This record gives sequence, C-alpha cells and structure tokens, in this order.
Amino acid sequence: MTISLYSASVPVFQANLKNLKGVLAKAAAFAAAKKIDESVLLSARLAPDMLPMGRQVQIACDFAKGGTARLAGLDVPKWEDTEKSFADMAARIDKTIAYISDFTPAQIDGQEERDITIPVGGTPMTFKGQHYLLLVVMPNFYFHMTTAYALLRHNGVEIGKGDFLGRS
Amino acid sequence: MTISLYSASVPVFQANLKNLKGVLAKAAAFAAAKKIDESVLLSARLAPDMLPMGRQVQIACDFAKGGTARLAGLDVPKWEDTEKSFADMAARIDKTIAYISDFTPAQIDGQEERDITIPVGGTPMTFKGQHYLLLVVMPNFYFHMTTAYALLRHNGVEIGKGDFLGRS
Repeated sequence: MTISLYSASVPVFQANLKNLKGVLAKAAAFAAAKKIDESVLLSARLAPDMLPMGRQVQIACDFAKGGTARLAGLDVPKWEDTEKSFADMAARIDKTIAYISDFTPAQIDGQEERDITIPVGGTPMTFKGQHYLLLVVMPNFYFHMTTAYALLRHNGVEIGKGDFLGRS
Repeated sequence: MTISLYSASVPVFQANLKNLKGVLAKAAAFAAAKKIDESVLLSARLAPDMLPMGRQVQIACDFAKGGTARLAGLDVPKWEDTEKSFADMAARIDKTIAYISDFTPAQIDGQEERDITIPVGGTPMTFKGQHYLLLVVMPNFYFHMTTAYALLRHNGVEIGKGDFLGRS
C-alpha cells in the first residue's frame, strides 16, 4: 500500500475548506451578535504589512484550486477577488470545493515525477509533482488556513482548534 | 508511481522544523537587538485563552515526534516541556529532527491501513494510518507551526512567508 497523490491532495483540501467554512460561519454569527460590521473582521491584520483576513481565505482557496489544477496538468482558472462578506467567502469556498471535486484520481495519480513550473516571487521554479504538493502547496495552504483562523481568534470569535480540525 | 507514507511524513516534518528554527533564530536576534526579554516573546498569546508562543513550538515538535512514532507503531517518547529560551527551543527542534531522522522508510511505509488509536480530548479514537497522517497529524502540525510564526510576526519580528517556507 502507498498513498496516492490524489488522496494526499483533493480530500485534504475538501476537509479543511469545509472546516474553514464552519469557522467563518461562527465569525459571521459573532459579528451579527456583537453588531460588528463584517468588513472589520475581513480586513483584520496581525501586522500592518500582512495580508488581511479575507485575503487569507481567498489565498487558501487558491492554493487548493491551483494545486489541484497544476497536479492534473491543467491551466489554473483565474477568479477575481471580489468577496465583501462572510456569505461571499462561504460561496468562494463552495466554488473551490466544487471545482476540485470534479477532478478524478486518474487525473492526478501518477503525476508524482512530472515537472511543474510555477512563478515564485516572480521567478519560474520547477518542482516534481510530489514535492510541489507536499512542500509547496500544503505549507502554503495550511499557512493561510491557520492565519485566517488566528486572526478571527485574536479578534474574539469563539472558536477553538476543534473548529479548525472539524471536530466541534 | 505513488507517494510513500514515509515521504509524506518525515521529510515534510524535517523541512518545516528546519524552517521554524530559522524563524526562531530571527526572533532571538530581534529580541537581542531590541533588548526584549525572550520570555516576552515566548509567552506571547493571540488570545488570553490560547496557548503561548513557546507551547506552539513544543506542540509542533510533538506532532512530528508522535506522528512519526505512531505511524511506525512505536510508543511515543515523553519529553518534558522545560524550554525557557530561544536556544532551548532550537535544541528541542534539533532533538525532534534527530529523533524522526532515525526512522527508515521501511518502518513507516505500508502502515497506511493499520489502525492507530490516540486520545482525542480524552476519548480514544482510531484512525487508519493514512488518515491519521493526512487529516490528524498534518493539520495539527501546521496549525501550531503557523501559530508560532503568526505570534512572532504580530510582535514585530521581521519575518515573512519566505521564512516559513524556507525560501529566504
């Protein structure tokens, strides 16, 4: 037995994005209960030169979308970042889950050794499929997933690690 | 070609922990330059009921140590959380990397379908090896890795995502 590239990618994105949607639902309920404009939470930052909460969600979605597309050798669809509310963000997550859920294992399995070239800081870099997933896409995906969570937690939303892990 | 359970675990932990060590080195230099007691950064929190920075590092190490041991079917060694400085934390990371680096692919590959039982919130839960790695250990590992980074970033340490990803 071994792990397939598909099983290490699409189901992992699906599970985590579903959990992120739950975290955002709690944030939306918190904003409504406290009469906080949603844009306050969506624009929250941990440092002035760090991207705000809403961008963290969009980028997490984009690593799931782009990672899946590139593993399958397809062009990455470009989606505009137009979300302005938690409902918009939930729709972005749903759209991402729907997009990646259309991929079949046959499209992704077997791509472990294929070269994948992506721009990193403006410079094209080439990785093997397996390295690309495990050491480029996943660290980035979880980085933005966790930063979105941390920003909401820091702003008082009543969430715990169980929400991040989908256990609550 | 498929991914091996070993390649999806030990090298991923090694790379990320090495990057975390680099992040902590920048935090130590920042504390020294600003004459900030290291304990201030090590005890920083994003919310009063959230674990402090130092614990995030220890727990990230523990998921690498425990995940690797459990995948191989070994008991998890218990290490006391005695670290008080960034040098102590770097040593904890080195000890973790040394521990997991002693495992061979033969000890971990092929454990994808073996049942692994762990306590989750005090209740024993059983997962297959592959699920345990991809949907229990990795989300937890990256959660604590990223939270440690976010806390230092929030406190003014001059780090960027390139440090988290090992690209700077």
